[in-house]
Amino acid sequence: MFVQALLLVAGLCRAQDPAVLVHDPAVETALAAAKNIEPQTIEQQVHICEIAAPPFHETARGQELRRLFTQLGLQEVRVDKAGNVIGTRPGRSLHPHLVVAAHLDTVFPEGTDVKVTREGTVLKAPGIGDDCRGLSVLLAIIQVLDQAKITTPGTISFVADVGEEGLGDLRGMKTLFSDSMKGEIDKFVSIDGTGYGIVNVGVGSLRYRVTFTGPGGHSYGSFGMANPIHAMGRAIAKIADLEVPSDPKTTFNVGRAGGGTSINAIPSDAWMEMDLRSSSVQALNSLDRRFQATVRTGVDEENRRWNNRGKVSASFELVGARPAGQTPLNSPIVLTALGVSRALEIEDDLRESSSDSNVPMNLGIPAITVGAGGKSTGTHSPQETFDTKDSWLGTQRAVLLVIALAR
Amino acid sequence: MFVQALLLVAGLCRAQDPAVLVHDPAVETALAAAKNIEPQTIEQQVHICEIAAPPFHETARGQELRRLFTQLGLQEVRVDKAGNVIGTRPGRSLHPHLVVAAHLDTVFPEGTDVKVTREGTVLKAPGIGDDCRGLSVLLAIIQVLDQAKITTPGTISFVADVGEEGLGDLRGMKTLFSDSMKGEIDKFVSIDGTGYGIVNVGVGSLRYRVTFTGPGGHSYGSFGMANPIHAMGRAIAKIADLEVPSDPKTTFNVGRAGGGTSINAIPSDAWMEMDLRSSSVQALNSLDRRFQATVRTGVDEENRRWNNRGKVSASFELVGARPAGQTPLNSPIVLTALGVSRALEIEDDLRESSSDSNVPMNLGIPAITVGAGGKSTGTHSPQETFDTKDSWLGTQRAVLLVIALAR
Repeated sequence: MFVQALLLVAGLCRAQDPAVLVHDPAVETALAAAKNIEPQTIEQQVHICEIAAPPFHETARGQELRRLFTQLGLQEVRVDKAGNVIGTRPGRSLHPHLVVAAHLDTVFPEGTDVKVTREGTVLKAPGIGDDCRGLSVLLAIIQVLDQAKITTPGTISFVADVGEEGLGDLRGMKTLFSDSMKGEIDKFVSIDGTGYGIVNVGVGSLRYRVTFTGPGGHSYGSFGMANPIHAMGRAIAKIADLEVPSDPKTTFNVGRAGGGTSINAIPSDAWMEMDLRSSSVQALNSLDRRFQATVRTGVDEENRRWNNRGKVSASFELVGARPAGQTPLNSPIVLTALGVSRALEIEDDLRESSSDSNVPMNLGIPAITVGAGGKSTGTHSPQETFDTKDSWLGTQRAVLLVIALAR
Repeated sequence: MFVQALLLVAGLCRAQDPAVLVHDPAVETALAAAKNIEPQTIEQQVHICEIAAPPFHETARGQELRRLFTQLGLQEVRVDKAGNVIGTRPGRSLHPHLVVAAHLDTVFPEGTDVKVTREGTVLKAPGIGDDCRGLSVLLAIIQVLDQAKITTPGTISFVADVGEEGLGDLRGMKTLFSDSMKGEIDKFVSIDGTGYGIVNVGVGSLRYRVTFTGPGGHSYGSFGMANPIHAMGRAIAKIADLEVPSDPKTTFNVGRAGGGTSINAIPSDAWMEMDLRSSSVQALNSLDRRFQATVRTGVDEENRRWNNRGKVSASFELVGARPAGQTPLNSPIVLTALGVSRALEIEDDLRESSSDSNVPMNLGIPAITVGAGGKSTGTHSPQETFDTKDSWLGTQRAVLLVIALAR
């Protein structure tokens, strides 16, 4: 009911109402083309996927996207200092300026076999869905707009970006919004992964590697000396009892830990990796402060226990910081996306996630991340699959969304 | 004063009083021989050291000791099922039956370079002191007793034993006392390492590897699930606050810990390695019970925190158990060892340690571990050295001690 009411509000802005647009002859042509070229879009997806793009090593795949952007007639095709490949399709005016992006990088290390295999409608390869599907749909949008001879009122820039995954830490987006396209972007859509979800809540995260160090010694001979693993244990016990709100959802996790060299030695070091997340900037910052305080308290308690003999200290290394943000449910960009789903009879759902849209959301720039259609299993695993059944619907959705937003 | 008073008590037993024995002509001959053959003893030490004997792989060095035992005329030279090399030098009667042992194994893994280098009086190689020195002194005792034509009242068995170090867990001694020489041994001397220390307190230890397991999941998506690293942290925090007596010295240490695969995943497993020690059987058992209870409490607290969602469990693997024991200060074997030092004007000291003597001490069999003379640095490191300066004094001490005890 709530969403329906909001759609009525959106309905007032007829110009970008997908329900109206979908009956425009040029848009009809575009949607037909999106479906017609799907076999080619899938071939492109396979082709892109077979160019490995490990974290921090997206250059080869980026070069191919640069070539394709140029071949498809985008203007000012360029690679920014982060490695993002950017190409522009001018509209009747510069603004609104819509950026449509898909990420180049995968989670898979160098040397991973990226050969795509097929069984019926199912493709299998690491990264085939996330985000080779997004990249191929990005290319399909450009082709379809040309085939349907559509000139949009606003301008569209297409971006194949770096550093979306893990320790990539959204560095592509950070550079795009703070440097290469700073101040130019009015709306942002990331096409990421498969299915038909719409992400309007960008879960922020802070990631730390905490190292605990002390002199170390013999477990019996030096007993009575502070122990870095014991200090870490005290810290973890306190972390485990932190209280966090469930709305906005806020989470904490010690994901990895290690330390020590021998069962019979007081270790000289221990370390842990900590993940803190929230869709609320305030909740994330509050959790961050309390997390850091618990680590210090744990260390202090261990040192006091042994009267500071063999004193342990802790140091924090920030290994990831993804800004939190939200695009309100009643914002035009979200309402347009929901309208597109309705016009194409797509069952979508609104989601929270950490994706490229976090960066614009945090800056207050209207942004969403949408799935590129089809269906995946085993995302982020070497067994990743992509089912092409009816995947053309994802291409259609992306095309209609871009047409509706580029005005 | 205390020790001096005890020495007077020991003085009553003239037959094995080192101060008297040292003036016996045959003993004088033996002591002179011990000094004379020292260059040969040092050569033997180098020779033995250059046959690698990693943990659980003592066979090659054992075979050489078997050959040397046979060559030196020991009787019933044999290898028991643990790999201990045993040879006997009969006395005028079977009892008292003294066992003199040195251990074959080192702490160094296969592939370690065991070539001995020399600079002045200093030899350098992994294991050169611990326990190649003990093994070469063992062989010297046999030679010297023969050269001095000494027949002891009791019988002496010489043992080159396995599994003294680390996870070897005293398995050589456990087999010797429970199987291959079960019920036969009246007194025990281990010649281990360098210097002139006398160990009469056998520090017992229990070593565990504790594994914490749960289903694991995504750090954000699955938040609200128990976390094995968090459970381990809770356990370690409690372990770090355990209270232990300082006399008998009782210690605890988490020496190694690890777990998890990714910063953004709730881990499915974590593990820690725990070392518990005491010279008192009761104190060790009490600590063991409290340690196990704290682990269970830590796990329970983590599970309760999340209402048992993604329940974590812990399992204990006992990876080492060294029995605790003591040979009283006023026992004849300790008093004899102190008397030997005094007769040879050696500055000794009484120590606590974990060594082969733990096993007989725990069984109530008189046992001590003594250094084999000379001086070491970097024991248990690849930079181990042995200074041969005046090391003949260690051979003399071992010879006089064996003569005094084999009666």
